Amino acid sequence: MKHTKIKDLLCCTSTLSNVTAKGWVRTFRNNQFIALNDGSTINNIQCVVDFENTSADILKRVTTGAAIAVTGDLVESQGKGQKYEIQVTKLEILGDSDAEKFPMQPKKHSLEFLRENAHLRVRTNAFGAIMRVRSVLAFAVHKYFQDKGFVYVNTPIITGADAEGAGEMFQVTSMPLDSLPRNEEGQIDYKQDFFGKHTNLTVSGQLEGETFAMALGQIYTFGPTFRAENSNTSRHLAEFWMIEPEVAFNDLDDNMDLAEDFIQYVVKYALDHCVDDLKFLEGRLLEEEKSKPQDQRSEMSLLEKLTFVLDNNFKRVSYTEAIDILKDSTPNKKKKFQYLITEWGADLQSEHERFLVEKHFKCPVILYDYPANIKAFYMRLNDNTEPGRETVRAMDILFPGIGEIVGGSQREERYDVLVEKMKKIGIDEEELWWYLDTRRFGTATHSGFGLGFERLVLFVTGMTNIRDVIPFPRTPQNAEF
Amino acid sequence: MKHTKIKDLLCCTSTLSNVTAKGWVRTFRNNQFIALNDGSTINNIQCVVDFENTSADILKRVTTGAAIAVTGDLVESQGKGQKYEIQVTKLEILGDSDAEKFPMQPKKHSLEFLRENAHLRVRTNAFGAIMRVRSVLAFAVHKYFQDKGFVYVNTPIITGADAEGAGEMFQVTSMPLDSLPRNEEGQIDYKQDFFGKHTNLTVSGQLEGETFAMALGQIYTFGPTFRAENSNTSRHLAEFWMIEPEVAFNDLDDNMDLAEDFIQYVVKYALDHCVDDLKFLEGRLLEEEKSKPQDQRSEMSLLEKLTFVLDNNFKRVSYTEAIDILKDSTPNKKKKFQYLITEWGADLQSEHERFLVEKHFKCPVILYDYPANIKAFYMRLNDNTEPGRETVRAMDILFPGIGEIVGGSQREERYDVLVEKMKKIGIDEEELWWYLDTRRFGTATHSGFGLGFERLVLFVTGMTNIRDVIPFPRTPQNAEF
Repeated sequence: MKHTKIKDLLCCTSTLSNVTAKGWVRTFRNNQFIALNDGSTINNIQCVVDFENTSADILKRVTTGAAIAVTGDLVESQGKGQKYEIQVTKLEILGDSDAEKFPMQPKKHSLEFLRENAHLRVRTNAFGAIMRVRSVLAFAVHKYFQDKGFVYVNTPIITGADAEGAGEMFQVTSMPLDSLPRNEEGQIDYKQDFFGKHTNLTVSGQLEGETFAMALGQIYTFGPTFRAENSNTSRHLAEFWMIEPEVAFNDLDDNMDLAEDFIQYVVKYALDHCVDDLKFLEGRLLEEEKSKPQDQRSEMSLLEKLTFVLDNNFKRVSYTEAIDILKDSTPNKKKKFQYLITEWGADLQSEHERFLVEKHFKCPVILYDYPANIKAFYMRLNDNTEPGRETVRAMDILFPGIGEIVGGSQREERYDVLVEKMKKIGIDEEELWWYLDTRRFGTATHSGFGLGFERLVLFVTGMTNIRDVIPFPRTPQNAEF
Repeated sequence: MKHTKIKDLLCCTSTLSNVTAKGWVRTFRNNQFIALNDGSTINNIQCVVDFENTSADILKRVTTGAAIAVTGDLVESQGKGQKYEIQVTKLEILGDSDAEKFPMQPKKHSLEFLRENAHLRVRTNAFGAIMRVRSVLAFAVHKYFQDKGFVYVNTPIITGADAEGAGEMFQVTSMPLDSLPRNEEGQIDYKQDFFGKHTNLTVSGQLEGETFAMALGQIYTFGPTFRAENSNTSRHLAEFWMIEPEVAFNDLDDNMDLAEDFIQYVVKYALDHCVDDLKFLEGRLLEEEKSKPQDQRSEMSLLEKLTFVLDNNFKRVSYTEAIDILKDSTPNKKKKFQYLITEWGADLQSEHERFLVEKHFKCPVILYDYPANIKAFYMRLNDNTEPGRETVRAMDILFPGIGEIVGGSQREERYDVLVEKMKKIGIDEEELWWYLDTRRFGTATHSGFGLGFERLVLFVTGMTNIRDVIPFPRTPQNAEF
């Protein structure tokens, strides 16, 4: 018999006769009440077993984690906590789960233990919720851009270009490391590698994305990117998903407008489509904060925090203004910052970003117009700046609790300026011939940004470790599963 | 002044005063008529220049590929071919394009030349259309699954598991190949690699996807996968995007229903949302076929072929039936097949699949219940088969002109049967401990399939080389851009 999803059963507006549900047992109380979940929703359906007329052999196999099918009438529940329940007339064990051995016991597990069981943690309430929210956010990303006529572009994962310098790269090879082919000079002969050259995993699809924006107008990427950096932090992954829109004819103001509108859209989409999951995660967070001292608890609940982002414009602050604020700030004067701000040109550290967002402005902040020499080569040099104080049309969006969630810029569209900058920092023009072609033929103002998808999921779910918002995290010394 | 997308201007239902359009010049006729494109649609807008009142310096910079901005009234066109045109009052050159040097001349280029200029080919009509159709198809994939409550899962790209055996894998490392660390036995010391072990690029997210399906019920992946196979064919890429749904409680029949419904949905979505692009590609195909002998031309136009797939059920044929048909077929009897079919158990080659689809059934075909020993270890063994004729609940969907577009199966849910099979073919149980856990704890019938996204795009666009339907193809000896 065809089964009905638990989400649909729980949404029913009237009783139904003879329905079947399939799922996994969460709990079994008093030999009578099964809480059954099938992943379609965070909510379980209560299945009431006629234990007097069910064999003891079957009943003892109804254990946490077992897969079962139940058939019966959907009736109004006499108990509290649910509107409907299933009065079970048929109970079938599909797959047993040895109660002694099943790692996901109905009790609180540490997040670290759950990470080691990433293949099973998704059977818990919290990780089921996180993964559903992640999925809905991913769809919101696509829907936002497609509704506006952006073209989704799959930029390459394996790349021969390693000029961007966004970070350390992983090498990709099909050569046997035990017996690497060598050329006459005794060097590794990359001509014999699969692609006939040295190749890496991409750190960003931006440069390829720009070539498409200069043809299709508005494009976005959404794919995996990689950093071979030995950072064991709660904010970094070696493999993460990034969203990179790029728009022809947009300047930096348009770019800021787009980023702000985009983030507000996807957060609203999650609020509109995942309220049960978000409420559960809000409760989880409240519970967790109870163990913290009062002054370290959040001022806002998760849903309040998300609503706040929708209802308030992001504060736009130039780098120069930010430096003035930081110089005059109490932690700077009292030497509480690890890196004291003494002059214009300093690179901002996470402690400074957090001060601006969490203490000073208390809202999302867009910092823009950074010093040229702390930003990437492809960013548009501002006109009419003082010598020694050159700035570029860069922007970073900083979020409370997350730090940098977006980095973007208006791109340097002038061929000569771009080439000079590349020369200055030693980037090979020949390697990026195709990138330079966009400035050779029909160049135009254009802008874009990158948003780390997992940081967005962190923000929306209220989780605090990035390893908990991606199915199978990749970090130093960890590529299990 | 804010500009309007050309797609929106062409959709107007009345004239407008003082609009601005920005884009790239496709052609410039008679010093008067600019065909302008901004990538929002395959259609150009005609911009009529008042050449008597425009400086000659500006006019000569209106060359193919130049980026320009035009302002003027949107009026009804006197010429044929377009309803509206812009009467230009202001013409600005944003970025020049040297007519002598711009590689994308307004003439026919070979596909091979265009592949070498993958960063510019998207500025042609054909590749603009292909990339827009690709994007819309990708969105249709997400929309189909999300509307049905599937959860999108990003399975890992870098993987420590290499047991699946779907093909040759690329190795990922952060160790310097010039000075690989060695252990005391002189072997490469993978403990010192980034992940502390030997890692590869994924060939499939299926196994990880199964662990999520056994918690969330219905999931799908859509991400890049890799094969380090030296196949220089028009159907293979080293890096390609794959869609892999996996559904708990689905058997093979449900799996076939899902695959067929899914393909029909996305094809219909493309027909509903990309008709201008598809009509252009249909015309391109007709033009191309004119150079072929009559008997090699398609019986159906592109749109007829797409509509045919919507209107006709896929023919479901067991492997055993297919072998009987092939044994009795004319090419087999006349020894025209390279691999003659003599007995049950033979692996089907592309020539046999094409015969079944293109000559015998003349429609998409789902082959199912293949011999166990030519299929993967995780496929569900059929009950009650004759000894020596064991089959598994596998299915392949074959498409005219494309060959295999989907491969899937019901999965072996029985722990003992699965372990025995793994032992038989030498897969290490310990390496797949987490996969086996899904059968240890609450196992259940489940099924899924993989669809190569580029093969779908090939089918829908009518292109014949897979390198032409992905932005920057990765193939042996080629990782440019």
